[in-house]
Amino acid sequence: MDIHIITIGDELLIGQVVDTNSAWLAQNFNAMAIGAVKKIFTISDSEKSIMETVTNSFKEADLVIVTGGLGPTKDDITKKVLANFFKDKMIFNEELYLKINEIFKNWAHKNVKITKEQFYFPSKTKFLINKMGTAPGMWFEKDNKVLISLPGVPFEMKYIMENSGFEELMAKFKNAPIVHRTIKTVGIGEGKLSEKLTEFENNLPNDISLAYLPSIGEVRLRLTIKGDDEIEITKKIELAKDKLVLLLGDFVYGFENESLSEAIGKILIKQNKTIGCAESCTGGYLSHLITSIPGSSRYFEGAAITYSNFQKENMLGVPKAIITQNGAVSEATVIEMVKGVLNTLKTDIAISVSGIAGPDGGTPEKPVGTIWFAIGDKERIISMKIQLQKDRIKNIQYAGIYAQNLIRQFLLKNI
Amino acid sequence: MDIHIITIGDELLIGQVVDTNSAWLAQNFNAMAIGAVKKIFTISDSEKSIMETVTNSFKEADLVIVTGGLGPTKDDITKKVLANFFKDKMIFNEELYLKINEIFKNWAHKNVKITKEQFYFPSKTKFLINKMGTAPGMWFEKDNKVLISLPGVPFEMKYIMENSGFEELMAKFKNAPIVHRTIKTVGIGEGKLSEKLTEFENNLPNDISLAYLPSIGEVRLRLTIKGDDEIEITKKIELAKDKLVLLLGDFVYGFENESLSEAIGKILIKQNKTIGCAESCTGGYLSHLITSIPGSSRYFEGAAITYSNFQKENMLGVPKAIITQNGAVSEATVIEMVKGVLNTLKTDIAISVSGIAGPDGGTPEKPVGTIWFAIGDKERIISMKIQLQKDRIKNIQYAGIYAQNLIRQFLLKNI
Repeated sequence: MDIHIITIGDELLIGQVVDTNSAWLAQNFNAMAIGAVKKIFTISDSEKSIMETVTNSFKEADLVIVTGGLGPTKDDITKKVLANFFKDKMIFNEELYLKINEIFKNWAHKNVKITKEQFYFPSKTKFLINKMGTAPGMWFEKDNKVLISLPGVPFEMKYIMENSGFEELMAKFKNAPIVHRTIKTVGIGEGKLSEKLTEFENNLPNDISLAYLPSIGEVRLRLTIKGDDEIEITKKIELAKDKLVLLLGDFVYGFENESLSEAIGKILIKQNKTIGCAESCTGGYLSHLITSIPGSSRYFEGAAITYSNFQKENMLGVPKAIITQNGAVSEATVIEMVKGVLNTLKTDIAISVSGIAGPDGGTPEKPVGTIWFAIGDKERIISMKIQLQKDRIKNIQYAGIYAQNLIRQFLLKNI
Repeated sequence: MDIHIITIGDELLIGQVVDTNSAWLAQNFNAMAIGAVKKIFTISDSEKSIMETVTNSFKEADLVIVTGGLGPTKDDITKKVLANFFKDKMIFNEELYLKINEIFKNWAHKNVKITKEQFYFPSKTKFLINKMGTAPGMWFEKDNKVLISLPGVPFEMKYIMENSGFEELMAKFKNAPIVHRTIKTVGIGEGKLSEKLTEFENNLPNDISLAYLPSIGEVRLRLTIKGDDEIEITKKIELAKDKLVLLLGDFVYGFENESLSEAIGKILIKQNKTIGCAESCTGGYLSHLITSIPGSSRYFEGAAITYSNFQKENMLGVPKAIITQNGAVSEATVIEMVKGVLNTLKTDIAISVSGIAGPDGGTPEKPVGTIWFAIGDKERIISMKIQLQKDRIKNIQYAGIYAQNLIRQFLLKNI
């Protein structure tokens, strides 16, 4: 089943608000196999553009979701446009008016204004209850197609869909299932990945597609299959996924929405180990990534953010001579930083980062983007260097991901 | 001038990625008065839907921005569709091929794969340089209309637009001058701000508008004026800006694109002071914010990220009894953490944060979102508590901004 989403609102068109509703709806339609979102439109709340877009979408799609353009602060033209589109008239709904008044009578302090005008609706509308606000969802049907109109406020929209919208849709439509599998990789770029996967892609069954979704330091791979028999296509996609994972080996750290921070958290918990960091150029970003995961206090002890040379000596006991002879951005220094964490913070494993984040501070021997890492425990310490570019923020972010991958590879004894 | 944005990618249609590119582009087109975004489309990377949408948009709009569907992998058909649309042929661009090879030959990951195939482009394309990736932006012109095709990866897309795209667009299209002034505030919410500014807004000249642009912990205020005489409207908007700044006093920390981290950096440099942090619940995020600014090594010494109670004692010398009697999230503990930084890191000023970021770990007395801060120097230490909600990431981000504002107010002796 083909789905279109139309989001209405000038605040979206001037970029004041990011449209998160569409992604949420798409995820859910997908997960519940209600159908595939084919197009998303963001338009202004003018009568003309709403009418045009709804008309076109209702031709192309089986289900059209309209969000925004409802509620007491809007011009509320969506309802009127929909009444026109479905050749319907607006009537006052006293029952809903009294009910909403009842619900909101204790909300007076919150400045919720309820006017009679809000309770005029197209006469053939079926309502979807909204206990989070004054505007209900509206369900329209014609030629066995459905249009649902929802408020744009995310928590109201979600309430309506979760409490009745999705259920009613699943009851109304039976669908050819779509199954996705997402494989998360780190430590390999999009180009190298595609090279590694040339043969795999050439041999991929026609009904399975593969998409590359890169972000800083990581690439997500998404396999998609469509078909009639959900059990059969699930088997088929699992087979392709297994092949892919086998081909990529250690580059795969997780699946679906798992983050790299979550992945290393799981390994640390499984191995019952604690970790500490010594950060120079990343300035706390690596620790921030690790602690962004709920429950990270089970394995993350703490970190010494030693931005100055003095703090490397003072907080971690890096010998002054090491820094003087090798510089703060050097293999010798990052190794001493790891030792410093192990001795001072008394964690099971330790990782250190020292580099030149930029945009200034480089030399011919150590240009901006030179970053040293070390990782170790009581038995062994491993160090390595990477060379990045001149963008400070990107360098910090890349180094954070790279360091997390080192933690993973060290724990798994791949390095 | 009417603008359409077309974002291409199945990852958007299944809701795996939220489209933030469109909002960023719309904000900038708006701020630079290049034009108004009228419609945003999200479509799949199929030849048919790209061709259809581009064809329609090029009829309706003066400028069409296409993002996504470029890069080294197989799902990149955008270039070929655009060649067809502009009735052009694909030719190999050796110059760009050699240049990109040169740029990427020393790249860190060393696994950026560059194939000759990527360097076939429609022959009439004008290129917009992309130093963040292998796919350049492409500029097409026809009937005095422009289409720009950009990679979908946000940092590549932004690089291209910031370094050449916006400039070329401003040169191509002439507009009646628009002048903006952005005033950055912290420590006051949108509601309270609008209350404080009721009279100001009522007395604002008709040709000046005021927009509230809230983000976590901050609100940007943007004044906009349009008119024919740039000198005159600049004078007029400066007058309004001065009035606004006077009304808001200490809530204003900067102007235009200055970040709060930059603002505190400037004050620290001016006062020739160093700073150190002790972070518990923020887990490195505050230090990351401070060190995101180039040159922050002039004032940022380092931080102790003391996530566990043991590290609070071990790294900062917080007495065990203080934690046992008051808990790690308490006024007494954050005060001892500040003393610990001053004694251990030997900085001029110190700030500490300890709280319950959530989603778990709350108690009836200290619910999730309880966060204690302290800031001080040798002469005085000030502490305070805030109560946030249950969203872990938002709590960490808000606490980071709040702490930075404490640093600013402490340095300015407002607290």
